[in-house]
Amino acid sequence: MNKIYTPPPNDWKEILRRPTQTVEDIEATVIDIFKEVNQKGDAAVAKYTSIFDGVTLKSNRVSSLEIDQAIDALDQEVKAAIQLAKNNIEKFHKAQQTGRITVETTPGVSCWQEKRPIQKVGLYIPGGTAPLFSTILMLAIPAKIAGCKEIVLCTPPSKEGAVNPAIIYAAQVCGVTRIYKVGGIQAIAAMTFGTETIPQVYKIFGPGNQFVTVAKQLATKYGVAIDMPAGPSELLVVADDTADAAFVASDLLSQAEHGTDSQVILVSTSRNLITAVEKEIQEQMSTLSRKRIAQKAIDNSKLIYVEDDATALALIDEYGPEHFIICMENEDFYVNGIQNAGSVFIGNYTPESAGDYASGTNHTLPTNGYAKQYSGVSLDSFLKSMTFQKISEEGIKNIGNAIEVMAAAEGLGAHKNAVTLRLDKIKKATS
Amino acid sequence: MNKIYTPPPNDWKEILRRPTQTVEDIEATVIDIFKEVNQKGDAAVAKYTSIFDGVTLKSNRVSSLEIDQAIDALDQEVKAAIQLAKNNIEKFHKAQQTGRITVETTPGVSCWQEKRPIQKVGLYIPGGTAPLFSTILMLAIPAKIAGCKEIVLCTPPSKEGAVNPAIIYAAQVCGVTRIYKVGGIQAIAAMTFGTETIPQVYKIFGPGNQFVTVAKQLATKYGVAIDMPAGPSELLVVADDTADAAFVASDLLSQAEHGTDSQVILVSTSRNLITAVEKEIQEQMSTLSRKRIAQKAIDNSKLIYVEDDATALALIDEYGPEHFIICMENEDFYVNGIQNAGSVFIGNYTPESAGDYASGTNHTLPTNGYAKQYSGVSLDSFLKSMTFQKISEEGIKNIGNAIEVMAAAEGLGAHKNAVTLRLDKIKKATS
Repeated sequence: MNKIYTPPPNDWKEILRRPTQTVEDIEATVIDIFKEVNQKGDAAVAKYTSIFDGVTLKSNRVSSLEIDQAIDALDQEVKAAIQLAKNNIEKFHKAQQTGRITVETTPGVSCWQEKRPIQKVGLYIPGGTAPLFSTILMLAIPAKIAGCKEIVLCTPPSKEGAVNPAIIYAAQVCGVTRIYKVGGIQAIAAMTFGTETIPQVYKIFGPGNQFVTVAKQLATKYGVAIDMPAGPSELLVVADDTADAAFVASDLLSQAEHGTDSQVILVSTSRNLITAVEKEIQEQMSTLSRKRIAQKAIDNSKLIYVEDDATALALIDEYGPEHFIICMENEDFYVNGIQNAGSVFIGNYTPESAGDYASGTNHTLPTNGYAKQYSGVSLDSFLKSMTFQKISEEGIKNIGNAIEVMAAAEGLGAHKNAVTLRLDKIKKATS
Repeated sequence: MNKIYTPPPNDWKEILRRPTQTVEDIEATVIDIFKEVNQKGDAAVAKYTSIFDGVTLKSNRVSSLEIDQAIDALDQEVKAAIQLAKNNIEKFHKAQQTGRITVETTPGVSCWQEKRPIQKVGLYIPGGTAPLFSTILMLAIPAKIAGCKEIVLCTPPSKEGAVNPAIIYAAQVCGVTRIYKVGGIQAIAAMTFGTETIPQVYKIFGPGNQFVTVAKQLATKYGVAIDMPAGPSELLVVADDTADAAFVASDLLSQAEHGTDSQVILVSTSRNLITAVEKEIQEQMSTLSRKRIAQKAIDNSKLIYVEDDATALALIDEYGPEHFIICMENEDFYVNGIQNAGSVFIGNYTPESAGDYASGTNHTLPTNGYAKQYSGVSLDSFLKSMTFQKISEEGIKNIGNAIEVMAAAEGLGAHKNAVTLRLDKIKKATS
């Protein structure tokens, strides 16, 4: 662990630097697979499923029999936990629904804004050692509330051609319309172009490795939107002597176990706490199943001592953490002041894992400092806002001249003429 | 003009195809200029201002003296028109403000969502023949309402090193904090990396030519967000015999004068209207100052006859127009049914130019079919939503077990441990 005491602001940028990712050597592969899936559809998808996942499938769609079997197979305790989490996530995302906003900006000029669902969305859920079914809840629940008509899920099959029952169960209860056993670059390509079996979607959501990340970037070149740019997960905790060192250590470790490139930072106004947390981390580390991963991330972690709250907040805003835990006596100062963070966890009994799974907030959040300009996934991520306007004869009389003047000043005569014609007709009718 | 009668749905995609843009040959230039601006800052910006704009500037920032002079110089009528438009745009975008959304998802688990401003934003306004000051209103007014601290505007200087007074005036009254005489790729690069004089921003907004479009795409690779992907402007009008053919023609022409690649489509359930609009277009065309541009766009336009409202709406949703004018007896069918459109204009006295300038809605809208997944610019474009949560001891007792079960099922032991530690402490304290 790197302990840093009262770093001068000029050093912050360097101290807070995230590990850089190079993606350029991946790009050529991704471009090739996109081209092939665009041209050959399902045949190309099957080829890459065979190469990357080591399995040849009869059908790439999860059947209703497989769905029934998964529901039967899944442990009752996991089902109950998913249901509890689902209820909370639903409550929080339903509360984000907004109605039509209507304003008569000038008498006779009625303008309104309304949100309508993105009709077709695609969710990507990675495979690998752990079945990340919690991410399905975070994506499919708001998609369903938004009213998206087609909610497609792609996830890589195991070598036996199966999908983990927890993934199928979560997809089923959250309203996913079709589940495909397709992973990696070929999944993103299939949802970008559509194939004989997999529908083209308008927006793609979900995490993934570097290949998936580059594939999602490439998808945007073909007019598909994505949830947000991706990067390694990160947590910043600000804590003082009112914090429980064991809890802080457990939160830092829960972040560290995600991957060796995870970012873990403690900022504190207490030297004692820094020492205590360091000790707790070493103790708890030995009991962890993912100890090897966590240790590597912890080796790169930073424990930063600063002298006062104002300095701490400025440093945290400069970093813009994905997850931000506040265990400070003066917590309101941070809650009210923070400008750049994905999701904020307040107090000793609010671990990051609560938000990762079951409290109700979304866990798909901006990493890599993107909290400065991007929102996490919310209900709005599955909607687009549209504006409407209806102008009466009175209305165009009230604003028509201003439009004519501005259009003329911009040199756009036809824009002006569209108003002049209407004003002339009104004049004629009333004279 | 291309008249098409009752096209079968299988042909829609081809009929509605937009002109393709090739950007690959531009990319190398953009990458080079980005590299140079990143390394050499203002010196590189000055070099490219000299090459592309043909002027060497003493300072690239518009001075307070220049601002005063512009305010004096600008025609009183234009100032008044800008003020009227500003009032309406302010009213409509202020109405989009939302408060904190708080939900106690489970007793003791309090979650809330709040929006906070993007601290630093950059606006790009193209130069060329017409000074597009209206776009400054559309971008700077919501940025100011959102509470963005730094609102930077870049616009190319004239050969004399000047900026049009209407641009300076609009920037000044709408709360732009700094105006720079920098255009094109070098402007986007400067706002992406920051230079000695120009601040780095978190999100870049505004229109531009193909060079600017590619530069904005490249900016996203360096972690800067952009408003939306760009494409040529477009208008689709749906009209029947209740429409005024002269008005419809004037609206189509106002779109056509934007550029030779503008998209202009009329969908109608009336053969008579199609004939009448065609005649009106020819008559009005001759009087236009930008006749040559408009004629080219009109040559590529489509007048499409369909038999009924349901077919019309399905075809329009397939296209997803940036601007959508409805002049139909059965207007509610379209207003309620349309899923994919940027901004909707309803009735005979609601020309598109109203929304372009002064009604209050935003004119920065998704082109190229992006209305299927992107919103136009709104107040939210300058904000990011953050989530917060605070869990009490009671709260973690209520959801802790579900978190433990889900974390274990995902193989994330440290996530589980962060909850177990807290539950154990509560148990000890109460036993």
